[in-house]
Amino acid sequence: MATKNIVFLIQCEDRKGILSKTTTWLYGQNFNILNLQQYTDSRQGRLFMRIELDLADLKSTRSALEKAFDKFAKEQELSWQCHWGDYSNRVAIMVSKTSHCLYDLVTRQREGDLVCEIPLIISNHPDLEPIANQFRIPFYHLPISAKTKGEQEAKVQALLKRFDIDLVVMARYMQVLTPSFIEAWSGKIINIHHAFLPAFQGANPYGQAYQRGVKMIGATAHYASDELDQGPIIEQDVVRVNHELDPKGLRDVGKDVERRVLSKAVQAHLESRVIIHENRTIVF
Amino acid sequence: MATKNIVFLIQCEDRKGILSKTTTWLYGQNFNILNLQQYTDSRQGRLFMRIELDLADLKSTRSALEKAFDKFAKEQELSWQCHWGDYSNRVAIMVSKTSHCLYDLVTRQREGDLVCEIPLIISNHPDLEPIANQFRIPFYHLPISAKTKGEQEAKVQALLKRFDIDLVVMARYMQVLTPSFIEAWSGKIINIHHAFLPAFQGANPYGQAYQRGVKMIGATAHYASDELDQGPIIEQDVVRVNHELDPKGLRDVGKDVERRVLSKAVQAHLESRVIIHENRTIVF
Amino acid sequence: MATKNIVFLIQCEDRKGILSKTTTWLYGQNFNILNLQQYTDSRQGRLFMRIELDLADLKSTRSALEKAFDKFAKEQELSWQCHWGDYSNRVAIMVSKTSHCLYDLVTRQREGDLVCEIPLIISNHPDLEPIANQFRIPFYHLPISAKTKGEQEAKVQALLKRFDIDLVVMARYMQVLTPSFIEAWSGKIINIHHAFLPAFQGANPYGQAYQRGVKMIGATAHYASDELDQGPIIEQDVVRVNHELDPKGLRDVGKDVERRVLSKAVQAHLESRVIIHENRTIVF
Amino acid sequence: MATKNIVFLIQCEDRKGILSKTTTWLYGQNFNILNLQQYTDSRQGRLFMRIELDLADLKSTRSALEKAFDKFAKEQELSWQCHWGDYSNRVAIMVSKTSHCLYDLVTRQREGDLVCEIPLIISNHPDLEPIANQFRIPFYHLPISAKTKGEQEAKVQALLKRFDIDLVVMARYMQVLTPSFIEAWSGKIINIHHAFLPAFQGANPYGQAYQRGVKMIGATAHYASDELDQGPIIEQDVVRVNHELDPKGLRDVGKDVERRVLSKAVQAHLESRVIIHENRTIVF
Repeated sequence: MATKNIVFLIQCEDRKGILSKTTTWLYGQNFNILNLQQYTDSRQGRLFMRIELDLADLKSTRSALEKAFDKFAKEQELSWQCHWGDYSNRVAIMVSKTSHCLYDLVTRQREGDLVCEIPLIISNHPDLEPIANQFRIPFYHLPISAKTKGEQEAKVQALLKRFDIDLVVMARYMQVLTPSFIEAWSGKIINIHHAFLPAFQGANPYGQAYQRGVKMIGATAHYASDELDQGPIIEQDVVRVNHELDPKGLRDVGKDVERRVLSKAVQAHLESRVIIHENRTIVF
Repeated sequence: MATKNIVFLIQCEDRKGILSKTTTWLYGQNFNILNLQQYTDSRQGRLFMRIELDLADLKSTRSALEKAFDKFAKEQELSWQCHWGDYSNRVAIMVSKTSHCLYDLVTRQREGDLVCEIPLIISNHPDLEPIANQFRIPFYHLPISAKTKGEQEAKVQALLKRFDIDLVVMARYMQVLTPSFIEAWSGKIINIHHAFLPAFQGANPYGQAYQRGVKMIGATAHYASDELDQGPIIEQDVVRVNHELDPKGLRDVGKDVERRVLSKAVQAHLESRVIIHENRTIVF
Repeated sequence: MATKNIVFLIQCEDRKGILSKTTTWLYGQNFNILNLQQYTDSRQGRLFMRIELDLADLKSTRSALEKAFDKFAKEQELSWQCHWGDYSNRVAIMVSKTSHCLYDLVTRQREGDLVCEIPLIISNHPDLEPIANQFRIPFYHLPISAKTKGEQEAKVQALLKRFDIDLVVMARYMQVLTPSFIEAWSGKIINIHHAFLPAFQGANPYGQAYQRGVKMIGATAHYASDELDQGPIIEQDVVRVNHELDPKGLRDVGKDVERRVLSKAVQAHLESRVIIHENRTIVF
Repeated sequence: MATKNIVFLIQCEDRKGILSKTTTWLYGQNFNILNLQQYTDSRQGRLFMRIELDLADLKSTRSALEKAFDKFAKEQELSWQCHWGDYSNRVAIMVSKTSHCLYDLVTRQREGDLVCEIPLIISNHPDLEPIANQFRIPFYHLPISAKTKGEQEAKVQALLKRFDIDLVVMARYMQVLTPSFIEAWSGKIINIHHAFLPAFQGANPYGQAYQRGVKMIGATAHYASDELDQGPIIEQDVVRVNHELDPKGLRDVGKDVERRVLSKAVQAHLESRVIIHENRTIVF
């Protein structure tokens, strides 16, 4: 995955000639197409496309390209986003008391597997501050109670704004955000649920899994949406378990899947490989 | 998995000395223990054990051994079952219109992977009779309607009795059996549900999976119980899917998991590796 | 996977404008692009592309389209193949004594998962003739010895020609074909090797796996090439094993992976999703 | 996995009565058996057993129990090891320049998934010292060259002795230890090889994997042995890859499998679940 690229994510009503017109327009701008993936949902008559260009081919300013493409897109009625491969997304991590997802995200970022900045960590509990310190990341402890929820969320949003955040990762934050928060950050909050959704929604999924005697447990990363655990799913995975594991054992084993699923989802988002359409994702 | 063995499946309240007493009793009968697996559920204070003996060590008649062990088991308050490795279970397969699980079970039996007899196939539709004929297995077409359900089930039960059936495999039979039927065959009916339970219970799981936009689909083999899709789970598995698959595509991909999960569950049962306790299974 | 499509598989030197020119040419012929996948190997400067068109959009005869595209391809220096989605490939299956892959291929074809004709089965042993009869497929028993190898292969090739075969599947045929045979059928013979290549090449891979004490065993489907077990790999998979399995146990467990891997490889080929380049495959 | 247990790992020639005698001896010492797993390799006539006892049942001193069991074991000709569940193994991690396995081991230890002490990290390069500092673990930089190899290894061994090390984990150390070192630490050095052994032994496995065009890459954790990459395998796993990944891409994807495989192997060792016999492991 080269980072010196330009990625266009496009969706539109499907009709003949879209590919021809789009690739020809880009060719006219002198671009080589490094990678093009396209998918047409024939049930919905909708076309989704990811185009990766070589940044070295850019002959104009960035804003000039975006402006020109916008004109073309309006003519062709395309919805689009443009991602510049040399721009490093700014990611805020929200946590509660559990450290495994936090450790995983931060170490992957340090190793260069997640290409992003992590300017701050926000938590409603002070427990993980030492880990933030270990990695020299500013830590904001914003406690929350039923009464102070609105106030606390306002502080969180102010921090996100102040730090110019592009993406919020709820790495086991364990709080439900209010609809207005979610709406303001639509498609920009990734949450990890510690179960294979839609199984075991809500609280204590490992206890539920134990009760049901399942032979696999899973985890689900999705964009946050108004309805709890109902947002567009980005990534899921499972791990085999057996009768020997009680709820605590399931939770221990599940940490690994949670870590892996959340990191893969964040990576897909950072690499501009995800398009959201209604309650589903296209992950190229 | 040698078939010339004797398998004891045992469960009891956990207490000191059970293993010592049981293995010593068997040693006193001249047996070599080929394989012993034991698991104690410390939350419930319950011990489960599978002991595999060498049939060649048997010095008495079979009924004498069973009688003697029963005496020992009563003293020690053990629940137990004994399976003779040279006895081939008699399995009835119930189907509806879908052939993939039927083909899989029958070909695995022919290849010697599922050690059992299949004396008959029962269906509420005539569609799969040609497959039964291909493999020269008697096929009984017993149509069912809301009105004739009781009558049809009586015929099914009569067939199971007449053919001396040990295990019923519902290979996509798509009918809910009445509680009295299930009770009469408790722990002897294996069903395949075409979803990763408890997700997508009930009808049309692939349609539900499509709606939810999941990234994996699964299948679940369980013993039939009174409550639909709630019986003790024996085996589950999943397969990765993506945005390109519509409900029909999911169903096509799902066939493979259904096949695999059902066969593994049936094999575990036939190899006497499953103990049921309440709504859970211990699969050794 | 709709079958009423036209698939173009294209490869060429990478250069600017290929996508624009190709999609524009197809648009000029009135085609809607259902699906386009493209991959550029920047190390080799080579572009690979799979384009799926709607057969309903065809306005000319098939040969006229092919002729016209050939002209365009020559100008643009593209290598290409065209596959008509309503044409059912004719597949010959070659077997020896082992039935699991044969059963799997034939039952999947019957269920419509492998869209192809199977006009004949060829074997150097008579053992599997009953299975061919079960499915009413002509069976040709052509024994082979060191002396008669050339002669036998000539008979095989005559059969392939007579039955208008498009693809040969070696479903555990266990014989090495001579280079001239392989050359004549380059890219049209799929073989299954019962190990995770390049581990355990050659004979008795399960014995080798047991000796080495591996914790997973696998299978590899590849196009046959001059060098034994060295052809372009199409599909691989593995299954977890443990210390309890001796070579026979590994072989039994391995049957499942062999089946699955071979079927997936054959399906990818039949759906025109594979491009071969040197000793590697691009599987879209 | 309770840690307040006693684990006996036992192996011996298989013969009748071993299980009875052993469990009866332990019962005579007042022990409840929490968990017993036994496996008989009938090809080799060898029995392997893992017995987990409740530490709370201990009535004597530890050395008295070990002495008494040793007497019993000598009579019965058992090889055995005893592990005390409240003892935390002391693990030295050896690294070179790559951080992903180091991060993984250290964070898992901090989260309590790997129950052990990590008193020091040893490296032939200074690159990872900052990570050691982050986690406040002493870091020893011992450079190595062809000339100084013997000398450097002597220093390493002195450190292992001085820090009372029980287990050495080569977390991508990338150096071959001399036979005398390995012999001195037989069964106490775990190495990760970044390929699915026996495929791609030796240097640059990801380059080899790319050349061969495999569709999965893997990792192997094994005890170090005299012959490079030939020691008893503890754990293996793979991940699916495709044609888009060049050697660097394979290496990036492979990091995840390496991490997971090494951690699982170390955990199995720390939980006293591994018995070595000749060149194979029994992992209970």
